[in-house]
Amino acid sequence: MQQYFIKGPFQNPIVIDDKETLKHMFQVMRLTDGEQLHLVFEDGMKRLAVVSDSAAHAFTILEDLDQNVELPVQVTIASGFPKGDKLELVTQKATELGAHAIWAFPADWSVAKWDGKKLVKKQEKLEKIAQGAAEQSKRNLIPAIQLFEQKAAFLKTLSDFDQVFVAYEESAKVGEQATLAKGLKACQAGDKILFIFGPEGGLSPQEIQNFETAGAQLAGLGPRIMRTETAPLYALSAVSYALELDK
Amino acid sequence: MQQYFIKGPFQNPIVIDDKETLKHMFQVMRLTDGEQLHLVFEDGMKRLAVVSDSAAHAFTILEDLDQNVELPVQVTIASGFPKGDKLELVTQKATELGAHAIWAFPADWSVAKWDGKKLVKKQEKLEKIAQGAAEQSKRNLIPAIQLFEQKAAFLKTLSDFDQVFVAYEESAKVGEQATLAKGLKACQAGDKILFIFGPEGGLSPQEIQNFETAGAQLAGLGPRIMRTETAPLYALSAVSYALELDK
Repeated sequence: MQQYFIKGPFQNPIVIDDKETLKHMFQVMRLTDGEQLHLVFEDGMKRLAVVSDSAAHAFTILEDLDQNVELPVQVTIASGFPKGDKLELVTQKATELGAHAIWAFPADWSVAKWDGKKLVKKQEKLEKIAQGAAEQSKRNLIPAIQLFEQKAAFLKTLSDFDQVFVAYEESAKVGEQATLAKGLKACQAGDKILFIFGPEGGLSPQEIQNFETAGAQLAGLGPRIMRTETAPLYALSAVSYALELDK
Repeated sequence: MQQYFIKGPFQNPIVIDDKETLKHMFQVMRLTDGEQLHLVFEDGMKRLAVVSDSAAHAFTILEDLDQNVELPVQVTIASGFPKGDKLELVTQKATELGAHAIWAFPADWSVAKWDGKKLVKKQEKLEKIAQGAAEQSKRNLIPAIQLFEQKAAFLKTLSDFDQVFVAYEESAKVGEQATLAKGLKACQAGDKILFIFGPEGGLSPQEIQNFETAGAQLAGLGPRIMRTETAPLYALSAVSYALELDK
């Protein structure tokens, strides 16, 4: 069944006014009066709803649905600005894989240089991608997108997390394999976890030092070298496997 | 250090004649006499080599390198033909994530219809992508690409594997979470594992039945709905996490 995210708190009945949502509902899906769908308000509860008046864009909520598909921990991924449209791929796939938030920051070795205006457009684009992917993968929430213009502002957030992992190629090279597994075993439901990934050129020694000073752990993600856009997908899959499948 | 795969058995010294490899070496990377690189013959051993005569495309092997980055089990992923160029993305990412072989087959609900000629071109394209990704992620082998024209031929291969998992959305919906973890815990080094994924529309009930009859296990990959091209990346990451990180 088609699922839509609705901005704002739960209300019943509701008149929907978001143009893109309405376009998808009535032009793409051609919903008619009496047809059912799932609506998700900002409380994250999925609810069965029915089109009560398609001309007025009015819906009635029928019942709450006990369908929570969120990871047991809140995983934020933060990528050093990568080239081109890699962040678009990361956003779509990380949303499917359960990310709670998707961030990016200007890393020392980022080739991509995004200023204020470009960042705003990029953020809007990524938010649309996240919403579409969250609807398709039946998430209870849309991952929050945040693009930091200054790395200092990103660094300040590290203390808000229960655990911070830095995906570090050099750790992989020396055979470091256990940090992530140990960390995930120590997780409790609701924990906030941050994964940091470098851009194409990797993280600088200064960045690694700053992250470690802020309490981050350097973690290998297996012995193979992954591209910058692949590593976040590995990390999220590993969290799901460890906390949802292997328990 | 740059790595190249060389067709054929180990030999020392060696003259390389593959045009694309030579182009990358001498036009893109501008290698000169005395420069070092890694060569990987079909035995999968990485070796340190030096350009002994760039004009003659001649190289001398200096030493074997003890660098094995392959997964401890051989994982084949098999996707029902997906739309467009999704198999290109799957091939690149699955190679980075350690796949031993990447297959695809005409599923009942595949929208993409690829005949003999198209299949040959597709296969050639995927082989190039796999080679490039294998070199970049420093693999010891290039995943073998196989596109089955007939599903029956694919079905016959299932008995060659130690374990076969079918990624099944319905399993995820009923909360089936344990099959994959149980299966991976029973793995032994060198085991051959096959993961089967449906196309966009999923696998048909008849296909599910055929796979189960052939000994496959239906396995959920977490509660979120993933796109057809995302599920193989989850499966490979899960195998790596279970067998390389969490041991």
